[in-house]
Amino acid sequence: MPVYRAPVQDFLFLANELFEIEKQRDIPDFKEVTSDLLEDIFTNAGKFAEEVLQPINQSGDEEGAHFENGVVRTPKGFKEAYKQFCEAGWGALSAPAKFGGADMPMLVNLAVGEMMQSANQAFAMYPGLTGAASGALLATGQPWMKENIATKMISGEWAGTMCLTEPGCGTDLRLMKTKAVEQPDGTYKVSGTKIFISGGDQDLTDNIIHMVIAKIPDENGKIHDDLSTVNFFMVPKFLVDEAGKMGTRNSVNTGGIEHKMGIKAQATCVLNFDEAKGWRLGPKPVLPKPGEKRSASAGMAGMFGMMNAARLGVGIQGVSIAQVALDNAWDYVHERRVGHALTGPKEPDKSADLEIVHPDVRRMILHCRSFVEGARALAMWTTINHAIMDSDRADKDQAGLLADLLTPVIKAFFTDMGFDCANMAMQCYGGHGYIRDNGVEQFVRDARINQTYEGANGVQAMDLVGRKLGRKGGAAPMAYLQVVGSWLSENEKDETLAAYVKPVKRGLDILQQATMWFAQHGLQNPNDAGAGAVDYLRLMGIVSVGWMWARMAKLAAEKLKSNPPNAEFYQGKLVSARYWMERMIPECPMLFERIQAGSANLMALEPATA
Amino acid sequence: MPVYRAPVQDFLFLANELFEIEKQRDIPDFKEVTSDLLEDIFTNAGKFAEEVLQPINQSGDEEGAHFENGVVRTPKGFKEAYKQFCEAGWGALSAPAKFGGADMPMLVNLAVGEMMQSANQAFAMYPGLTGAASGALLATGQPWMKENIATKMISGEWAGTMCLTEPGCGTDLRLMKTKAVEQPDGTYKVSGTKIFISGGDQDLTDNIIHMVIAKIPDENGKIHDDLSTVNFFMVPKFLVDEAGKMGTRNSVNTGGIEHKMGIKAQATCVLNFDEAKGWRLGPKPVLPKPGEKRSASAGMAGMFGMMNAARLGVGIQGVSIAQVALDNAWDYVHERRVGHALTGPKEPDKSADLEIVHPDVRRMILHCRSFVEGARALAMWTTINHAIMDSDRADKDQAGLLADLLTPVIKAFFTDMGFDCANMAMQCYGGHGYIRDNGVEQFVRDARINQTYEGANGVQAMDLVGRKLGRKGGAAPMAYLQVVGSWLSENEKDETLAAYVKPVKRGLDILQQATMWFAQHGLQNPNDAGAGAVDYLRLMGIVSVGWMWARMAKLAAEKLKSNPPNAEFYQGKLVSARYWMERMIPECPMLFERIQAGSANLMALEPATA
Repeated sequence: MPVYRAPVQDFLFLANELFEIEKQRDIPDFKEVTSDLLEDIFTNAGKFAEEVLQPINQSGDEEGAHFENGVVRTPKGFKEAYKQFCEAGWGALSAPAKFGGADMPMLVNLAVGEMMQSANQAFAMYPGLTGAASGALLATGQPWMKENIATKMISGEWAGTMCLTEPGCGTDLRLMKTKAVEQPDGTYKVSGTKIFISGGDQDLTDNIIHMVIAKIPDENGKIHDDLSTVNFFMVPKFLVDEAGKMGTRNSVNTGGIEHKMGIKAQATCVLNFDEAKGWRLGPKPVLPKPGEKRSASAGMAGMFGMMNAARLGVGIQGVSIAQVALDNAWDYVHERRVGHALTGPKEPDKSADLEIVHPDVRRMILHCRSFVEGARALAMWTTINHAIMDSDRADKDQAGLLADLLTPVIKAFFTDMGFDCANMAMQCYGGHGYIRDNGVEQFVRDARINQTYEGANGVQAMDLVGRKLGRKGGAAPMAYLQVVGSWLSENEKDETLAAYVKPVKRGLDILQQATMWFAQHGLQNPNDAGAGAVDYLRLMGIVSVGWMWARMAKLAAEKLKSNPPNAEFYQGKLVSARYWMERMIPECPMLFERIQAGSANLMALEPATA
Repeated sequence: MPVYRAPVQDFLFLANELFEIEKQRDIPDFKEVTSDLLEDIFTNAGKFAEEVLQPINQSGDEEGAHFENGVVRTPKGFKEAYKQFCEAGWGALSAPAKFGGADMPMLVNLAVGEMMQSANQAFAMYPGLTGAASGALLATGQPWMKENIATKMISGEWAGTMCLTEPGCGTDLRLMKTKAVEQPDGTYKVSGTKIFISGGDQDLTDNIIHMVIAKIPDENGKIHDDLSTVNFFMVPKFLVDEAGKMGTRNSVNTGGIEHKMGIKAQATCVLNFDEAKGWRLGPKPVLPKPGEKRSASAGMAGMFGMMNAARLGVGIQGVSIAQVALDNAWDYVHERRVGHALTGPKEPDKSADLEIVHPDVRRMILHCRSFVEGARALAMWTTINHAIMDSDRADKDQAGLLADLLTPVIKAFFTDMGFDCANMAMQCYGGHGYIRDNGVEQFVRDARINQTYEGANGVQAMDLVGRKLGRKGGAAPMAYLQVVGSWLSENEKDETLAAYVKPVKRGLDILQQATMWFAQHGLQNPNDAGAGAVDYLRLMGIVSVGWMWARMAKLAAEKLKSNPPNAEFYQGKLVSARYWMERMIPECPMLFERIQAGSANLMALEPATA
């Protein structure tokens, strides 16, 4: 049976030693965070993930979610695990204390989330989406919703969903057909079909609060193919009153669940809204006057807030799956014997050496480890930037720019790498990896969804290149180049760090040139921006994780000077850092070369549509 | 429902125009091959693949193979399709006429095989393995086996398998435990457990001829952990006499079938041999005397012959899956509407443009097409080298070296790329790709096995670097560099071809340097060879396919001068060629940089086992 080992030590290293959270009391989010508290939370979350969620991951995949007579049932053990999850308060960690939360910073939530997703992605998505939905309700809802609805979601008594996608509309929300018609009492009747709704129905909670985007028809009852009238609604499965009391069933019905490649224990639902009662969230929409330009409505903001958090969360799923896949591959290559070391048998008395003796196996293992630990550091750094945004620090605006810039990078680069790592881990098993019983192929199937949901990775790249690079005169990439560049300048004189600092400097220089290239070519020919976006995002991902590795290598080298009892941990960091420098940074010139190829040949593929 | 369009036109282009098979009558294999004959075979094979095999591919995956009461049953429709397959003689194509075959060259078999595998990999493996087994029997068996057993396999009346892997032994055959004890009548009693046996049992044929490797115990009854006594045996499911008459059941039993990630309609069996009657193939083994060095037995040769053909076949499976995944993605991006072209709406009267307008979607489509068509050319070129080996040409030895050198490259590079392409095709569907009904995720799951069976891809890379580079003083890589280099020299003066010739020259120069690097470092430190083997194999794959693209681009440019009616076909070739030059060749310097990083850091991962 597959294993999972929660990387508690690594989280504590990052929070306490690399980012020194305890020393940053000026940031409101970190005011009451101590290393003892973090250790306590991470240890218990890790234990819960290992002992409660991981044991029902493979069985959940095998059994899958059920749909019978219009009702969804989760696999065996999910109900009990969910009850324990709520009792331990894992879903309430980062919610505000006044709504029943624990007021923990996003950093804690992300670490805990990573562990839960490693252990059981299909399970963790149920409370994960509830967290996103309650967060959106707190941001946009009326007081009674926050006090009497969101609180029940934070406790886990009720769940939440995000209802965006429709049969004819995923990436392109303009094409949405679901409509919301205002009623005399100020509520709306919501009608339409939403698909791919994770946790759209389940048997874990008494009620489900659907966060729905829908269009308000214009004065002539017409639905426009643009974003002007898209608004954000709360549509409960069972009706609620302002006191939070549950009433009769709302007209939201489950049309079915999807049969998917992976995350099979997660019920991905078709939801039919048939004049379902909904409450509009956010400010009253101002309908454009005839002839007036139709731009995105204010109601979209609530949804985007929810989606940004979700994008980071999905990026973390890439790390989660890579970590658990690595744990299992690690064990396998330390048990399985095949061939002899190329330099002669390591264990001549045994019939063969362990698989780990082979350089190519080590390459695959290190690829996973170098990604997982480097990406984890970058994710934590990004949550710290989020925390700085709410502080009085001089660099708070810069922190916001950086967090915003890196969100699509984390979503797409981490999930692409996570999928690759799951495959490499599977490859370590040889043919045995292909057998379902061994559990590792599930990680590949589960990891695959992360590259497409919450905005397919190509769309993330367009968000980065098409929106984030140019906004405010290029303020975000300039801030990025400045922050990383300064660190490198400060450390480039230390010859002992040259093996880490120089490669990152090389990568950063190329990233700077690539950024300039987009500034010059992207406006002239937007197709050039589109053609190179995916490569650019990867370039930024490699440089960003590389910078984290340079920082960790510096710290590890420093720690090793005092010959600490956990020297092996720091030595391991140096090896992983070196891997990134030797085998990932060399991608940078290749990516830039591809970017510079532009779009001409791609557009020649089919001139008629170019 | 998924589609498949057999690339008949492309096969004919390669055979008739690029390689001009009709003009090579001096090669015995091609003596009677005409373009009319090829067109007839390819068209009919394509039709069979499209109309008979493809329609039961998705249902076969959904239903899977069954195992009940010790008996295997294939999914609905497989029996009928198999009957049609045999009646049409698709399994007999390249077998010798005197044993009931059609005497077609390997080139034809590979093209037909590609189409069958595209349409239904799980199905095509049943006759595919039978072909490998009957080929081995023809190469190593006694006359009665060829005349009365192999003939029944060629007609498809009986099937065949390859029984190599055991629970404790896959890559490392030294560890094999299955033993074969000689009986007074010269036959053997074979005992042991074989796993991962494709087509190990099924309900398609009356009998199954298992080709089994097993160890003959030494004079003291001992089984050694080396290859010295490994021999090759024919072990039928039902006993046979020398006239080919079927008798009672042999003691070979199916222990179960594996539940796998993909190729679910293919029965992957555990076979238990319990003193099963077997016939030794090949020359009588000479047991080493006490104290004598124990080297591989002559019996291994038969198995390796079978495996080499199988490795090429698996490489083709990489192309097959990429082709069918591309076909489906192509249709999807021409139906699905999302967003507008970056340069402004292409169809302003529609709510959105087709997905194909987006540069990044074109990048994914072209990646697949450029791989599929370039790889197909390289595979055909390799089969032509096989054919040249049996001719009187001056370069027949060189042809053998080239075919041998490229076998692991085709197996590993094609299956890695095939998996990537299946994933890219799936990515074109966004979230819809993750839904089983849409069929594209099956391609990803099916494609994944190709990277591990018939020798995991890392093992292929070690075969290339550890065995094939150095053998006969480096004759194979020297021949390769000379052949490709000469072509480039002949064409480098043509400025109109510079966009194709120069990138390949760049790649070849790097490949040459990398080959030198291995010659210098690999002997000094074998771990350096192991650490860079996978990157080197990929480098050779990229350069080799690049060379095919340069040749095809030259031909296409030439053809376009006369403004042919199928100009679009040749223009498409130029676009695909350009893609490879712009976006694949730039990997070459990166791969060489990684190779030069060597093994030091990988071995530092865990010093205790290094």
